[in-house]
Amino acid sequence: MNILKGNAIVGQSGGPTAAINATLSGVIRGVLRNSDVIGTVYGAYNGIEGMLKGTYCDLSRMCATEEKLKLLEKTPAAALGSCRKKLPKLDGSDPNADKIYEQLISFFRSLDIRYFFYIGGNDSMDTVAKLSAYTKAHDYEMRIMGVPKTIDNDVMGTDHTPGFGSAAKYIATSMEEIIRDCAVYTTKAVTIIEIMGRDAGWLTASAALTRVKGAEPDLIYLPERDFDMETFFSDVRAALERHPNVVVAVSEGIHFADGRYVGESAQSGVTDVFGHKYLSGTGKALEIAVKGEIGCKVRSVELNILQRCASHIASLTDINESVMVGSAAVDAAAQGVTGRMMTILRREGDVYASYACHEDIDKIANKVKTVPDAFINAAGNGITDECVNYLLPLIQGESYPEYSDGLPDHISLK
Amino acid sequence: MNILKGNAIVGQSGGPTAAINATLSGVIRGVLRNSDVIGTVYGAYNGIEGMLKGTYCDLSRMCATEEKLKLLEKTPAAALGSCRKKLPKLDGSDPNADKIYEQLISFFRSLDIRYFFYIGGNDSMDTVAKLSAYTKAHDYEMRIMGVPKTIDNDVMGTDHTPGFGSAAKYIATSMEEIIRDCAVYTTKAVTIIEIMGRDAGWLTASAALTRVKGAEPDLIYLPERDFDMETFFSDVRAALERHPNVVVAVSEGIHFADGRYVGESAQSGVTDVFGHKYLSGTGKALEIAVKGEIGCKVRSVELNILQRCASHIASLTDINESVMVGSAAVDAAAQGVTGRMMTILRREGDVYASYACHEDIDKIANKVKTVPDAFINAAGNGITDECVNYLLPLIQGESYPEYSDGLPDHISLK
Repeated sequence: MNILKGNAIVGQSGGPTAAINATLSGVIRGVLRNSDVIGTVYGAYNGIEGMLKGTYCDLSRMCATEEKLKLLEKTPAAALGSCRKKLPKLDGSDPNADKIYEQLISFFRSLDIRYFFYIGGNDSMDTVAKLSAYTKAHDYEMRIMGVPKTIDNDVMGTDHTPGFGSAAKYIATSMEEIIRDCAVYTTKAVTIIEIMGRDAGWLTASAALTRVKGAEPDLIYLPERDFDMETFFSDVRAALERHPNVVVAVSEGIHFADGRYVGESAQSGVTDVFGHKYLSGTGKALEIAVKGEIGCKVRSVELNILQRCASHIASLTDINESVMVGSAAVDAAAQGVTGRMMTILRREGDVYASYACHEDIDKIANKVKTVPDAFINAAGNGITDECVNYLLPLIQGESYPEYSDGLPDHISLK
Repeated sequence: MNILKGNAIVGQSGGPTAAINATLSGVIRGVLRNSDVIGTVYGAYNGIEGMLKGTYCDLSRMCATEEKLKLLEKTPAAALGSCRKKLPKLDGSDPNADKIYEQLISFFRSLDIRYFFYIGGNDSMDTVAKLSAYTKAHDYEMRIMGVPKTIDNDVMGTDHTPGFGSAAKYIATSMEEIIRDCAVYTTKAVTIIEIMGRDAGWLTASAALTRVKGAEPDLIYLPERDFDMETFFSDVRAALERHPNVVVAVSEGIHFADGRYVGESAQSGVTDVFGHKYLSGTGKALEIAVKGEIGCKVRSVELNILQRCASHIASLTDINESVMVGSAAVDAAAQGVTGRMMTILRREGDVYASYACHEDIDKIANKVKTVPDAFINAAGNGITDECVNYLLPLIQGESYPEYSDGLPDHISLK
């Protein structure tokens, strides 16, 4: 084994989740248990931006106690701040590329950083891949690991992503409460719940988890199936025949067969730096459509950013696995692994168990893992038991924060 | 003391809350401890509608154990179902009035019901007042008590309403998480949170409770103050000067000086049976306005029905008081009190303590308790410490549900 001694830096990137700080805690724990090779772990503020600006903190000092680490694990959203910055391409197309990479390497040298951990979504793995290629080509020896986080669960090569289980637990719990709320009146009404998920319907599918409690949304539509408005109207009419309080769960990214998003009428036209269209109003568009076509009482509820930051109802399984995968990233790097993304794999057998592994970035970056056919019913308006069985272990257990003054305690790393 | 022996009926009315079933449990507990005068407690499905249709259940049998009562206390939304039905006026203007009231009395006679408990909001007290007047005028001896519930906290004569504390705790907890979520990026952005409250800003004010954790919304607008769009723009600009991630909390019912609702552009025009305008889109209207005027990134989040049914994060203080006031209603009725609404009063002193009392319905029905001047800052865009001090005791403690299969356990009374 090639021993590499030095310090570590960790950054967070992409959208917030309830578990991204649990992974950060895992990285800190991992450094502690690999103290024979890794000295200090620094935290870069706002991901790669902080490494370019030289804004960072000493996590070895700030999170030195078990109490602080636990507090970090129960704090939502990136405690170090996040960014959506992309590193320049290495194909010579960007004249500033070398300058930016050299600036990073100079920063690493100044702190003797030889270990780089980046906690982020699909887009963040692009940063890991580019930095790996550059440091290798320019003889700066560094071990670079990506640790996935996304509530969307749309990352290839991993059974599921850290952060997904907590969002799924929030969605299913809220759905259970919403179904209760909707059931109190006897007049016909349709309630449409819009759930995050541009390209993959994992979060929306988790609305069906309430099945294990004997009630579930009447209809569920994912972006994996083309959406047809007439079929939708007839699905809703049939549901209203069965009972007066119809609940529908839809992904924000559902689209017609021609590719137009259902929410496009309410769309802002803005795209983010990765070229994703910025959507809003899928639920609202369907609310207006049902009101016009069927005429009953209709409302839409957008779970919005609540579903990604609700650490007060985080999944203990998710939080524990997020810590595990962060620590395992450090173990792997200390043992010589580099340029790879951490994964969580599910053991065979009837009882759920998971373990951390790692995978080639190339097999993962810029790809989307969608909900498989076997998880969606034939009519394309519901979820199979196979899907529920896949999802259910991921929401087990409650990771409650400590409360003071009636509100959750969170850590500050600023 | 005039002893009246007989059975009891309890109904639930108006919008759901996380605590309305805790009050129901309190009524059942109250009947149990007054078993010398009250026999069975029946539950009417869908409030007064169930009494007219004869659809009811035997709560003495269905909720006979402590385990069932606890489960009921942690179940959101009206477990018996709700209604928005108004009883006809007694001034002779409704030719069907006598028929409807006689139908009710015939139902009460058939089950020997001499105690009537109605758990509901402002509008439900109207039902209590009318039924009291009718039974008195027609010599059907009956003790009739209203028990308030509303997340809106807008009921006169009571320090606060059962159900408010849990909604306030959900809002403040979510606000704490949202402020975290918004803080992760360095680009200028405005996030507008729309909170329930048509005429009173209590729920929106509770967004400021995060002050005790060192962070709070930059701006808070309540319906108690006229809203001015130019002042709002200048408030937002000033906030963006201070830091990049501006969070604004607004009541759904904020309106301009001429009375027009801010959300009116997105209003459906529908009114409910009590003549209230059905609003939607206050946050969305402001989002569009800020985007047009200031041009930075803007989003709006509507807490929607989640804030009234989130029993997974209910306030233990609220749940305990809701049980207390339900039980106390039965005690009062057993002792001869009738035609009154239960209240929760706050004891004098530095340490928070509350007790149940009751008040004339006439002093309460069809009135709205708004947020007093001393609770709103001079600029009309924030909340005073006096308000935070009033609110803080109401969100103390966590009433966690039991979980199985990763999701909360709820009771079914159907």
